[in-house]
Amino acid sequence: MKNLRIGMIGYGFMGRTHSNAFSQVNHFFDLPYRPVLQTLCARNPARAQAFAAQWGYQSVEADWRKVVESPEIDLIDIASPNDTHAEIAIAAAKAGKMVMCEKPLGRTAAEAQGMVEAVEAAGVPNMVWYNYRRVPAVMLAKHLIDEGRLGRIFHYRAKFLQDWTISTDLPQGGEGLWRLDVNVAGSGVTGDLLAHCIDTAMWLNGPIHEVSATTETFIKSRQHNLTGKLEPVGIDDASLFLARFDNGSLATFEATRYARGHKALYTLEINGANASIIWDLHDLHRLQYFDHGDEGRLRGWRSIHVTDSDHPYMKHWWVPGLQIGYEHTFIHQAADFLTAAAGGQAASPTFRDALLTDHVTDAVLASAKNRNWVSIPKA
Amino acid sequence: MKNLRIGMIGYGFMGRTHSNAFSQVNHFFDLPYRPVLQTLCARNPARAQAFAAQWGYQSVEADWRKVVESPEIDLIDIASPNDTHAEIAIAAAKAGKMVMCEKPLGRTAAEAQGMVEAVEAAGVPNMVWYNYRRVPAVMLAKHLIDEGRLGRIFHYRAKFLQDWTISTDLPQGGEGLWRLDVNVAGSGVTGDLLAHCIDTAMWLNGPIHEVSATTETFIKSRQHNLTGKLEPVGIDDASLFLARFDNGSLATFEATRYARGHKALYTLEINGANASIIWDLHDLHRLQYFDHGDEGRLRGWRSIHVTDSDHPYMKHWWVPGLQIGYEHTFIHQAADFLTAAAGGQAASPTFRDALLTDHVTDAVLASAKNRNWVSIPKA
Amino acid sequence: MKNLRIGMIGYGFMGRTHSNAFSQVNHFFDLPYRPVLQTLCARNPARAQAFAAQWGYQSVEADWRKVVESPEIDLIDIASPNDTHAEIAIAAAKAGKMVMCEKPLGRTAAEAQGMVEAVEAAGVPNMVWYNYRRVPAVMLAKHLIDEGRLGRIFHYRAKFLQDWTISTDLPQGGEGLWRLDVNVAGSGVTGDLLAHCIDTAMWLNGPIHEVSATTETFIKSRQHNLTGKLEPVGIDDASLFLARFDNGSLATFEATRYARGHKALYTLEINGANASIIWDLHDLHRLQYFDHGDEGRLRGWRSIHVTDSDHPYMKHWWVPGLQIGYEHTFIHQAADFLTAAAGGQAASPTFRDALLTDHVTDAVLASAKNRNWVSIPKA
Amino acid sequence: MKNLRIGMIGYGFMGRTHSNAFSQVNHFFDLPYRPVLQTLCARNPARAQAFAAQWGYQSVEADWRKVVESPEIDLIDIASPNDTHAEIAIAAAKAGKMVMCEKPLGRTAAEAQGMVEAVEAAGVPNMVWYNYRRVPAVMLAKHLIDEGRLGRIFHYRAKFLQDWTISTDLPQGGEGLWRLDVNVAGSGVTGDLLAHCIDTAMWLNGPIHEVSATTETFIKSRQHNLTGKLEPVGIDDASLFLARFDNGSLATFEATRYARGHKALYTLEINGANASIIWDLHDLHRLQYFDHGDEGRLRGWRSIHVTDSDHPYMKHWWVPGLQIGYEHTFIHQAADFLTAAAGGQAASPTFRDALLTDHVTDAVLASAKNRNWVSIPKA
Repeated sequence: MKNLRIGMIGYGFMGRTHSNAFSQVNHFFDLPYRPVLQTLCARNPARAQAFAAQWGYQSVEADWRKVVESPEIDLIDIASPNDTHAEIAIAAAKAGKMVMCEKPLGRTAAEAQGMVEAVEAAGVPNMVWYNYRRVPAVMLAKHLIDEGRLGRIFHYRAKFLQDWTISTDLPQGGEGLWRLDVNVAGSGVTGDLLAHCIDTAMWLNGPIHEVSATTETFIKSRQHNLTGKLEPVGIDDASLFLARFDNGSLATFEATRYARGHKALYTLEINGANASIIWDLHDLHRLQYFDHGDEGRLRGWRSIHVTDSDHPYMKHWWVPGLQIGYEHTFIHQAADFLTAAAGGQAASPTFRDALLTDHVTDAVLASAKNRNWVSIPKA
Repeated sequence: MKNLRIGMIGYGFMGRTHSNAFSQVNHFFDLPYRPVLQTLCARNPARAQAFAAQWGYQSVEADWRKVVESPEIDLIDIASPNDTHAEIAIAAAKAGKMVMCEKPLGRTAAEAQGMVEAVEAAGVPNMVWYNYRRVPAVMLAKHLIDEGRLGRIFHYRAKFLQDWTISTDLPQGGEGLWRLDVNVAGSGVTGDLLAHCIDTAMWLNGPIHEVSATTETFIKSRQHNLTGKLEPVGIDDASLFLARFDNGSLATFEATRYARGHKALYTLEINGANASIIWDLHDLHRLQYFDHGDEGRLRGWRSIHVTDSDHPYMKHWWVPGLQIGYEHTFIHQAADFLTAAAGGQAASPTFRDALLTDHVTDAVLASAKNRNWVSIPKA
Repeated sequence: MKNLRIGMIGYGFMGRTHSNAFSQVNHFFDLPYRPVLQTLCARNPARAQAFAAQWGYQSVEADWRKVVESPEIDLIDIASPNDTHAEIAIAAAKAGKMVMCEKPLGRTAAEAQGMVEAVEAAGVPNMVWYNYRRVPAVMLAKHLIDEGRLGRIFHYRAKFLQDWTISTDLPQGGEGLWRLDVNVAGSGVTGDLLAHCIDTAMWLNGPIHEVSATTETFIKSRQHNLTGKLEPVGIDDASLFLARFDNGSLATFEATRYARGHKALYTLEINGANASIIWDLHDLHRLQYFDHGDEGRLRGWRSIHVTDSDHPYMKHWWVPGLQIGYEHTFIHQAADFLTAAAGGQAASPTFRDALLTDHVTDAVLASAKNRNWVSIPKA
Repeated sequence: MKNLRIGMIGYGFMGRTHSNAFSQVNHFFDLPYRPVLQTLCARNPARAQAFAAQWGYQSVEADWRKVVESPEIDLIDIASPNDTHAEIAIAAAKAGKMVMCEKPLGRTAAEAQGMVEAVEAAGVPNMVWYNYRRVPAVMLAKHLIDEGRLGRIFHYRAKFLQDWTISTDLPQGGEGLWRLDVNVAGSGVTGDLLAHCIDTAMWLNGPIHEVSATTETFIKSRQHNLTGKLEPVGIDDASLFLARFDNGSLATFEATRYARGHKALYTLEINGANASIIWDLHDLHRLQYFDHGDEGRLRGWRSIHVTDSDHPYMKHWWVPGLQIGYEHTFIHQAADFLTAAAGGQAASPTFRDALLTDHVTDAVLASAKNRNWVSIPKA
């Protein structure tokens, strides 16, 4: 087992989930690499020091360029706000580092395009942290679909519902609230929440052909934390779209931060001629499965508690019936990345995979603006 | 189709459910008999008249003996309080009438014994209204068990939870509250609620061998509606027992009117080596079914929405997905009774079946009193 | 209590639900009218005779014009296929009869417009059987919204999912399958299922401003029962739309008969600043309610078992905890209509209310065809 | 922050959960101690070495006495089979080490008594790993009860249902299967599963006064892994009991490994005059809460997703809506222990607390054997 020295850019919410993944992955998976938390890079020195101490980083550095160029670093993991992804990733690729990047890849497909080109030109292992693919129940859904159990797909529907920005008192911008600042985030829920839904959807159900969308900003101006002034809100608070997939299925997608009662309710459903699947993030260890092949009077939605040893990833954890949580999706993704990276390979979703999602989010925003159907460019 | 003239004794809650069953049954089932609501018998003349008008009874009579002896009556249906069951049923049988009786059959097995002997001596069709056997989901459970799908049975558990007597202000006795008067009711939740659980359990899982019970009266005295005085409460407010069935399975049973948050939560679960079943009255149209024979990673509790045309009784109702309710169990039971009665047969649960339940409730009360295990007499 | 003589046009699924409503309504509600099942009108004489016998109709008539003109009839109830609604309703109104009509009112808004004008010109009580408004849980939702408990509304979403037409072997047209014949039905799921969703939505959340829709016919041709030939399918199998309401809220709507695992899953959710509501038809006696005003750490979705005596309509039925079913929504609607009609009033939803729904379904179909946003004409 | 050097005895399932707790606790909690995984003690050298490498133990030792006596060890954590607990714990206490012990404390109360005396005589911080107290939803239940929100308690019920020993082919004894060997485990489900239920119950609802129990061994003999011979099974496969608490409430308790369809379904419910609570381990991040104080028509069971920052322990984890899992209960318990230990205190449940549970399990086994009610000795 070789050491793999991590340069972590960012120490926010995602800095924590990634650091935890690297700390835990060798305890549960047999891997070719042992990640070493080498350098934590962030702007606020006191907070960076505290974070590094808590997670055991060996050094702290304020300038990401130094981390990218350091010979002591094997892998750059980008967990900083969206507006920093492209520049860091491209520099890291050029420096020959492996690159992992928090989603969305770029704020726009144009921005992401350059990132894809950089990692592919450099030939470095890369991956984007669309972590929900690695929920065991979601991975089980993927296996069932790939085995053809659902038959012809008629419908897909996905929602990501939150309620944390309903108050008009919530400011925008700066530490912890950059997701409300359009310049930093690129968009609102479209890039933050719908991007997850779109990534999973295309992975499970193939390419999206075209979309018709509408968006809304319910609260038009908010105090900006950096300027101290009341400023127009540039992000979309809610984003809804209809989609038609290449395989002929129809879909509804919706994301909002104004759905009172839901904290992080990512739900997906897929209806096939032979079987259907439902999953939601609030009870992430369950998969609902309906199999039309069951005996008629005994058909019903099965609530599969995805905690058995023959379920994806679960033999690495505890015993049947004992559930894992949110953070484990990152650990699974780290395990898969490290396995692939040992062979010099990228892991799914690669930068190229994630570029496709940026194309869809671009189309959603364009459709909402122009009030028409917008086709998605092909990969 | 022949008319079958009903003499209904009682106009309380059960008088309504039975009257509704007779009113509705021919609309949905093809039957050899058409019940005619001939005579309503009850003590309060004004209320009896109003009830008769509402349901279309052709006459009203205050003295049940006249109804029992009337040549215009073919069937006596006893929906009056428990302390009246035996005398009326025995007289009706002697008069050669068909007899239906609300549960429990007698206040004690000794009382019920005489009723069984009377209907059997007279050879008249008879039945006790343990209506929950005719919930489609419960009947489906019965079919699955009889087909041997569950394999060896290890466990049975049943509860009937209510919360309507928690207030100390609630009086006992008289119209609408006779269930709290031990002289009228015979017992508290043991005869009222546990009797349902026991009837279903023995029907599904065979005879109970022995029980160990405990009971409690949480509120020791209440105003009595008939005397106007504060009097000791003689009924059991809660009744819990362990049981061992003849087939070697173990069980817990519980009934209470002090389970805050539950109105009429009758639940049952049965675990077999190959499959398990769960049902509850608050969502009565669903059966939960777990089949160990399902492919390993796809095993899960199936929530069967028992509304399809191949589900018990359901082809008589609407279209798949549309649920029926509580009152329909009585309609089903009326349909089954009328079919059997046309051939001169009793319908399940017969008076003799219901006597067995009285033996168990007697044993439960004796065990609670004497703090020992009590064996159930064999049928 | 006066008799009100019903002329029932049609004996299909809806003929049964309406006949049952009239049979049952006086057993449970104190009303100014007693409906009398006077005449059943249908084309197949043998089946009409059997249906009339089962439900107690006093006569049978093949020609609806004779029923409309009969002095023995007070009310015409139209439960026949969609293509017959307008002609019968207009004639009935002209004859001065009260008119009840199964939904959708017309196959198009243009057709419905004439019906509205006829009943309003005649000044006769009228109502359209959008029965789901009278589910007690849905009515409770209406009360909560009208009391302002939800605050500003941000989101509405509704679906009506079925799976009964997935098989290519299913024919179209004729008895029992006219809903698949576009000439008779007018449209597919848009008029059959979405119409319900739209009616409830505008009742709860006010007018819809504009829509963007897409539809699909998954199975392009089916055997036609009347011609015996394989013919193109003209209906929409699935219909999805985005909507913006006048109150600024955003919505997704979807209906399909290709959602494997769902029989009649009508679901609705509404998110307000202060509270949210979820309901579904598969467990129709429950309302999910989230109140942000609850103490922080104790906030949660409440699963309200809408069976208490202080819940809408429920004091008329059994005791708390005991559920009612699908058919009861029609009984409630009949009760409300009879109460209003005694004062010469129409009952909600009136023909005029239902016309608004036809305007929206027209807009949905136009939007799907022309791939643009379509505005809804104002009432 | 001081280092606290751990000597871990055992590397089975519980060795993993405890090692993980010590590895993770400082990443999420600010604590006076930093646990150091100093020595792993186990009998199989190759497996011990592998386990130590995976978790980062600095040394491996086969003889637990050497670990107990080592000056390099501050705390002995006993995660080895039940028959080793007493001897190791007593030696560790005598050596002045802090002692943590996996549950049950002893195989019998007599065995546990010596352990309590040892730690109390030595005055060392001690704790037993009844981890389910630290599920955030269970801790929230504890807070609600302690605040008096439930009012007078009428009922308690708990079950722990598994299905992993139904096959007759499963052997008993040795690595991984010692829980089926009565000499090692002490009892079957009574000590393994019911002990958890009893610990939580007395913590939430106070002392148990008396019990009436029954047990069963469904499969009478199994191949023994150590002898290679078919041997009688000495453990109880299922154990059920009725209980009366000191506070007057009544209870049912049940544990089994023969409940097909349930992997680790620990459930508890408590009904008070004012409110009720339900929790289960299969969806451990939810608490069901019914508050009779809610407005009448809006009362319902609240499904509280216990993931908000004002929920117990949750501010240490991710963001609202994102769930944690089974392993986190051990991390919470480690955090609480380390905080208490810094002040020289034991943490709940202490050895003395756990002795009480052993008294109840002794009483359950005695009652089942002697078929009578058995009183519990007072603390």
